[in-house]
Amino acid sequence: MTEHNGKALAVARSYFDAMASKDADKIVSISADDIICTSPIGELNGAAAFRGFQEGFSRMIKKLTLLAAFGDDDQAVIVYNADTHPVPNSIVAEHLIIKDGRIASTRVIYDATPFAAYMATVQPH
Amino acid sequence: MTEHNGKALAVARSYFDAMASKDADKIVSISADDIICTSPIGELNGAAAFRGFQEGFSRMIKKLTLLAAFGDDDQAVIVYNADTHPVPNSIVAEHLIIKDGRIASTRVIYDATPFAAYMATVQPH
Repeated sequence: MTEHNGKALAVARSYFDAMASKDADKIVSISADDIICTSPIGELNGAAAFRGFQEGFSRMIKKLTLLAAFGDDDQAVIVYNADTHPVPNSIVAEHLIIKDGRIASTRVIYDATPFAAYMATVQPH
Repeated sequence: MTEHNGKALAVARSYFDAMASKDADKIVSISADDIICTSPIGELNGAAAFRGFQEGFSRMIKKLTLLAAFGDDDQAVIVYNADTHPVPNSIVAEHLIIKDGRIASTRVIYDATPFAAYMATVQPH
């Protein structure tokens, strides 16, 4: 089996498509109940917290563009460009671990600096 | 051919090993003369600039640990943990495009916030 046919890669692709179409229900349906999500904002535990994270992200998304997707039966890595309010082009990588057809964990990797800089401009004075 | 045997993945693995062993000469030897490196600090063009980037990174490295590596004949993605001065655990992803056996470009993805926070503490008062 080549990587392009890996079970984890298939789940990662479904996850990306769900993010791009802002479908939080779909994301949660392919996430483990005890999913662990690590990102620049910290570690989140459980599907409810992960839904909140995804809903917050989806409100920012203008367009997601997949740049790379690789994986095997157990894990996958996706790289995508996020055109968002407020940061036009942010490159994001996610390293997903898949168990029993669901996302057991994802590490979300991106530079939070531009987002923090934006937030600083919209804080009440 | 499976992804694990891809030519680009092999170059990406050599690149990771060279970073982990702080071997800038090796890194440059597998980089295109006109390599493009994008990262939170901006876009660098050419092997000389890339060498400077890598030498700066190598001075910070305490230990690099590879977490994932996938690729085919044309591109690869690596994810690694960087234990550095000053940030103990920084997750980095790189998306590499390989041409003619050399790195044509790499997108280096990580959260620069902890590094900026550290730099703020060491600025002259």
